[in-house]
Amino acid sequence: MSEGEFTLIARLVEAMPCRREDVVLGPGDDAAVLRPPAGMDLVQTVDTCLEGVHFPVGMAAEDVGWRSLAVNLSDLAAMGAEPAWGLLSLALPEPDQRWLEAFTRGVRGAAGEAAMALGFDQGTAGERRALALVGGDMVRGPLAVSFTLTGFVPRGTALSRAGASPGDEIWVTGPLGGGAAGLAALRRGDVAGAEPFLRPRARVAEGRALRGLASAAIDVSDGLAQDLGHLLDASGVGAVVTAEAVPVHPSVPSSQAVSMALNGGDDYQLCFTVPAARRAALQAAAAGWAEPPVHIGVIRAQPGLELRRGGRAVPLPEGGWDHFKGQSA
Amino acid sequence: MSEGEFTLIARLVEAMPCRREDVVLGPGDDAAVLRPPAGMDLVQTVDTCLEGVHFPVGMAAEDVGWRSLAVNLSDLAAMGAEPAWGLLSLALPEPDQRWLEAFTRGVRGAAGEAAMALGFDQGTAGERRALALVGGDMVRGPLAVSFTLTGFVPRGTALSRAGASPGDEIWVTGPLGGGAAGLAALRRGDVAGAEPFLRPRARVAEGRALRGLASAAIDVSDGLAQDLGHLLDASGVGAVVTAEAVPVHPSVPSSQAVSMALNGGDDYQLCFTVPAARRAALQAAAAGWAEPPVHIGVIRAQPGLELRRGGRAVPLPEGGWDHFKGQSA
Repeated sequence: MSEGEFTLIARLVEAMPCRREDVVLGPGDDAAVLRPPAGMDLVQTVDTCLEGVHFPVGMAAEDVGWRSLAVNLSDLAAMGAEPAWGLLSLALPEPDQRWLEAFTRGVRGAAGEAAMALGFDQGTAGERRALALVGGDMVRGPLAVSFTLTGFVPRGTALSRAGASPGDEIWVTGPLGGGAAGLAALRRGDVAGAEPFLRPRARVAEGRALRGLASAAIDVSDGLAQDLGHLLDASGVGAVVTAEAVPVHPSVPSSQAVSMALNGGDDYQLCFTVPAARRAALQAAAAGWAEPPVHIGVIRAQPGLELRRGGRAVPLPEGGWDHFKGQSA
Repeated sequence: MSEGEFTLIARLVEAMPCRREDVVLGPGDDAAVLRPPAGMDLVQTVDTCLEGVHFPVGMAAEDVGWRSLAVNLSDLAAMGAEPAWGLLSLALPEPDQRWLEAFTRGVRGAAGEAAMALGFDQGTAGERRALALVGGDMVRGPLAVSFTLTGFVPRGTALSRAGASPGDEIWVTGPLGGGAAGLAALRRGDVAGAEPFLRPRARVAEGRALRGLASAAIDVSDGLAQDLGHLLDASGVGAVVTAEAVPVHPSVPSSQAVSMALNGGDDYQLCFTVPAARRAALQAAAAGWAEPPVHIGVIRAQPGLELRRGGRAVPLPEGGWDHFKGQSA
């Protein structure tokens, strides 16, 4: 790491108020040294957000920071993991102190929201459990933000996409389509309306609560149809989803309700399956959630995803998200 | 992860012959699930290699793969860690199966070399200890390769840049300047002469052997003067280095010997300090190394790096490497 690069990354990292005792050696050396707690499995993920691909060119630095961390936290949430350690790889066209300060505020905002959701207060005890940024690097290049996050789950309790069985109920943690509607608002210059896209909320508390309850889970980043499809493929099953049951975000225009709810990306709700016998346990666990979970369908043995409206099979709306093609919904 | 992206990453990952038993859930889900061994600290690092910044435009895919992994392995080596798990974030202008296959060969080559150096044979037992690629993502963008690696050290034994004390001897694991000479050769179109730049060797076995011996260590990625400077700053000490003692790679032109050896980046040797009382132990530990370590100077309390030639202080050659300025040596 060069001198200038180190200074910028160091300032960014110092602005993250985290004092985890399991960080033996933080940023500034060749690597971080971390002490994993006994009895825990680690959950690790990387996600790169590139300007012009994953978010529009010119998006405010604070939003870039918030969103880039939140979408990574969402992957941990889908596994039922509590975030612990983060590494940041940042490509910037020019070193820009003001941009970095705003970016850092956004990163802190998303990390703080996750810590609050998990019940870690902002005192010292809470900071010792919140996400710690333990290292990173910075290069000159087109704006790209890549977080690698490591979280914990008690050994053997991580959720996965595989595990759904015929008869399991399909649920989502809340309304869909808000991310796509927010992106459309942003493109119209309506920044207030863009909030769901700019500041996604990772469902970390919901994911944690689903350990031991859900048979399978995934986060809705690329649209319900596509992400539920991944879950079905990984579980070797199919599903019937009731169109009328799919909760639609209030910001979605009614003319686009089904297509945005099923194909709109960037919602970061969790889609999960629960054996019918655990429905009461799910409802008890969900009593404190910000949004009530919604039952949208059922797993069946026959492969494929069937959408039903008025009890009859209807075609899935076309579209979806491919990072090599861009939003086609 | 989109369908196409997943397929490409999945193929890449399947081509890595790794079967670690501590990988509970590998690529293909929202995140990987990993089971850290008892009694170990984790060492974690991320490094992004960007075309046109960290390596020249048009470098062969196999070399890009080898080099990108090796420079990350080198950070683990500097901490004394054995590599265990890797995540790859890859930005590519276009999905290109042929390019990816060659890239994968390079990644496998560097991983295999490290495994061999650590004494993990290529049978099943060896593969269970070699680096496993446990996840990643792929985005469309200017070519950039970002590996996040996690390695292990027995609890409390990680090397760091801090810890050098006055009187400690300064050593390097082998000749310097080869990386810079290799880059110059590559720019002349001399691919054979570019080998030290294209295929750096991470000193993972040397780093592991230095646990409990070295008081401080760093890898030489940005040039000896700069990297030793980081070690001195972190340790709160200074140093005297004997110019005649600094080993120079045979490919360095004699007219540039000192400047390339002191300022040339991309060598990935380790620079480390050892209390004088441990010299015999170091020499015993180094008996099996590919290159004999070389004693180049001594730590002193007075801050700063002093270069001596013929017993007299001489100015450090100007130059060095800054990722926001490019090679200025």
